[in-house]
Amino acid sequence: MSKQARTAIEPTREENYAEWYQQVIKAADLAENSDVRGCMVIKPWGYAIWENIQRVLDGMFRETGHRNAYFPIFIPKSYFEKEAEHVEGFAKECAVVTHSKLEDDGKGGLKVAGELTEPYIVRPTSETIIGESFSRWVNSYRDLPLLINQWANIVRWEMRTRLFLRTAEFLWQEGHTVHESYEDAMQETLKMLDVYADFAENYLAIPVIKGEKTESERFPGAISTYCIEAMMQDKKALQSGTSHFLGQNFAKASNIKFQNRNGEVQYAWTTSWGVSTRLIGALIMTHSDDNGLVLPPKIAPSHAVIIPIYKNEEERAKIMAFVDEIKQELKHIQYDSIPLRLEIDDRDLTSSERSWYWIKKGIPVRMEIGPRDLDNKSVFLGRRDKEPKEKQGIGYAELAATLPVILDDIQNNIYNKALGFRNANTIEINDNKEFYSYFTPKNEEQPEIHGGFASSHWCGNAACEEKIKDDLKVTVRCIPNDAKQEDGICICCGQPSQRRVIFAKSY
Amino acid sequence: MSKQARTAIEPTREENYAEWYQQVIKAADLAENSDVRGCMVIKPWGYAIWENIQRVLDGMFRETGHRNAYFPIFIPKSYFEKEAEHVEGFAKECAVVTHSKLEDDGKGGLKVAGELTEPYIVRPTSETIIGESFSRWVNSYRDLPLLINQWANIVRWEMRTRLFLRTAEFLWQEGHTVHESYEDAMQETLKMLDVYADFAENYLAIPVIKGEKTESERFPGAISTYCIEAMMQDKKALQSGTSHFLGQNFAKASNIKFQNRNGEVQYAWTTSWGVSTRLIGALIMTHSDDNGLVLPPKIAPSHAVIIPIYKNEEERAKIMAFVDEIKQELKHIQYDSIPLRLEIDDRDLTSSERSWYWIKKGIPVRMEIGPRDLDNKSVFLGRRDKEPKEKQGIGYAELAATLPVILDDIQNNIYNKALGFRNANTIEINDNKEFYSYFTPKNEEQPEIHGGFASSHWCGNAACEEKIKDDLKVTVRCIPNDAKQEDGICICCGQPSQRRVIFAKSY
Repeated sequence: MSKQARTAIEPTREENYAEWYQQVIKAADLAENSDVRGCMVIKPWGYAIWENIQRVLDGMFRETGHRNAYFPIFIPKSYFEKEAEHVEGFAKECAVVTHSKLEDDGKGGLKVAGELTEPYIVRPTSETIIGESFSRWVNSYRDLPLLINQWANIVRWEMRTRLFLRTAEFLWQEGHTVHESYEDAMQETLKMLDVYADFAENYLAIPVIKGEKTESERFPGAISTYCIEAMMQDKKALQSGTSHFLGQNFAKASNIKFQNRNGEVQYAWTTSWGVSTRLIGALIMTHSDDNGLVLPPKIAPSHAVIIPIYKNEEERAKIMAFVDEIKQELKHIQYDSIPLRLEIDDRDLTSSERSWYWIKKGIPVRMEIGPRDLDNKSVFLGRRDKEPKEKQGIGYAELAATLPVILDDIQNNIYNKALGFRNANTIEINDNKEFYSYFTPKNEEQPEIHGGFASSHWCGNAACEEKIKDDLKVTVRCIPNDAKQEDGICICCGQPSQRRVIFAKSY
Repeated sequence: MSKQARTAIEPTREENYAEWYQQVIKAADLAENSDVRGCMVIKPWGYAIWENIQRVLDGMFRETGHRNAYFPIFIPKSYFEKEAEHVEGFAKECAVVTHSKLEDDGKGGLKVAGELTEPYIVRPTSETIIGESFSRWVNSYRDLPLLINQWANIVRWEMRTRLFLRTAEFLWQEGHTVHESYEDAMQETLKMLDVYADFAENYLAIPVIKGEKTESERFPGAISTYCIEAMMQDKKALQSGTSHFLGQNFAKASNIKFQNRNGEVQYAWTTSWGVSTRLIGALIMTHSDDNGLVLPPKIAPSHAVIIPIYKNEEERAKIMAFVDEIKQELKHIQYDSIPLRLEIDDRDLTSSERSWYWIKKGIPVRMEIGPRDLDNKSVFLGRRDKEPKEKQGIGYAELAATLPVILDDIQNNIYNKALGFRNANTIEINDNKEFYSYFTPKNEEQPEIHGGFASSHWCGNAACEEKIKDDLKVTVRCIPNDAKQEDGICICCGQPSQRRVIFAKSY
């Protein structure tokens, strides 16, 4: 029995989810670990996904009035110390630059030299360094709102790293905005959360829950942190984006003051919000299957591949002429406002090898063209959201009109599948015993896999949150923005509670 | 006399070129210095120029078969040590990460802690870290050519910094490619030099000379370095892009080997090439005038601004309705394959203040619309390449067709102006005395400004190069690719020489 008769990825999700994740990345050639502690190399297919994420999000940020800028990668230690909670949150895992050169060590090697008078931190986030500029840019209410975004690399010296999900260096965008009032800043915080949710659902095809973090999971220095939470296929939650209402904390730390409409000088209100290459981890774990990566068409590096199949040079000439005809026909087709991206895989491999290559890479549509298809002037089309063997013939004449429809159908289909999975694995639990049972591993081989999301009452007390975390490794993922006022009792202590929150294990 | 009756930028180029440069950047709001040693903040208008540079170049890299990827920002010291010349070239000015956290120092502050077993260098260029990946990616001739590009931030701890031209941190792209043979790698090196020259001339409107660097100006570790050199308005040269033929040096250092077509394992041939945010410095110094920035339309963040002029609310309503009509009319106009980017400046400032604001920012076209223009259904159009007062009326009906033509005309006009300037300040010099006189400052206030470019014979001897550098601060900028074989005598030593090179002072 050939390997592909079972699944292209081994182990399967069922057998070993964590290892399956690594193998999907490897099979799709998305990224690899480097020798540099915790830093990854993002390979072309993975980086192209990030570029598509950037392109779409950047458009959304522009639409909402933001402009891009770029700030220094280094943060002087003294800036870092300005906001107490902030430094507390990041000091334990940061890359510190202390020297400015290497010198001959007299033993044929190099030693560090040129010690700096003040150490610099490689940015783990940029509130303090950007705040320094903002304190100069903002003088009057006329300068507000100031709506800035930065695309950048970030370093957090994480101990346990995992490709895309948690790496010492990662790529992200960080929005930083300044406002006249509490209300304006809060509105911005929630608006950008909506942008993230819109992007996650309509482009990444990942259903998300919008909500607020509890105090224990808040961004260090923020007044409140909002997030989008997604369910992965192991039923754990992945925080996929955050938007922080910073109040006047960072304005005070960085001295961002302005003359308000009454002529008084006051501290401004700021926000920050970000998503990172972690989204690629979310994408992989939401849609992929035991045959490899599954990509939403709107974010796939390429939409479709043509696989010509022939036995000899004579056949080849005819088929490649037809392939070229198709290529010309599809040249002006747009999907989601960008030109259709088409691969042609004419490598010297069997058609099955080439098909599997693209299945593992998650390309939405495969079109095989053999001598028989030539006679019918048609292609044999396989969709990544269906079984590999399930294919349909499509006539050349319909292709240009049909392809965008099929891509939309795949996009919707994988979103609905993910939504169905989340719904099937989210339940309301009102009983403490049931709650504990729900989060107790069923499969000893994979103790991390548990029941899913629990929508349960919580009294708001940090002690209850901590007890549940200690007992079950389960945390409050968020207090959903759309949580209804409802009388109930806390799942932990039994005290009265007015609303349900989402409990889950998480990445 | 109002300030603008003279020039918007003070001092003028004539008065103090170096300070004029800083003031143009300030007036156009492109960038500013930060408190972080030598690092700049790139502000939205400056960053938008960089984004346009990225967009166009990225398209050119794709067209020539390259794909983007991303590699770690940190380079272990041991990698750095692998190529002797390379480390020699960069060790004196690099940011070294030695610690991984900050701890309470017991005095209310923080001290560095968590010393790393091996220091990391923040990348000053990525040959060694990318080489490490390539050694794993390349196994057979079938894997070649490997054509990769990275967009990234770079740190070189320069002592004397200047916005865009030389900063401790800068943004760039670095191409890294691997080939089967000397010929293939050399062809790639020259091809990418052509891409850079094409981009500089046809997008940035900067005429450049393509040529090879002498040994003393070569990239550390390269076999040969090719460059594009441009003349700034102070007649100094600015190296604007480089393409390096690395031979097998870095393949040996990083162990990039492959099985060739004869089944033998051999070292590969590599190249690297890059341009950086320095191009923005080149852009500023090539085109700007004493009224501020001048931008080539193909790279300007916005192509045109509409400045509505009215005295009261009644006029305002009518004029804004017309402005809206124009906006709709121009909505579908493309310039250089992208939608026309239009600003509408309705701020509560005089029309003169708003005009000067945009003149200083270098926007190619200004369209003023006052009550009289409304009657004629026309706009009053000013071009950045003409005098501020020189304006022309253009009827609404012609606007959509005329604007792209005007933009092209500006693009060509500023290129030709720059080319004319370079030609007027480049001469063939065959006499040593004339050469020394040419490069002796004429204006004591600005000792840096000198004759321009000299096309003179050079024997190829490093001693002559060094003598001229010591005497005059003049260097060989390049040996032009199109240098003709010609008998002559070295401008320094009088020995026979077969070709002229370009001598100039440089940034």
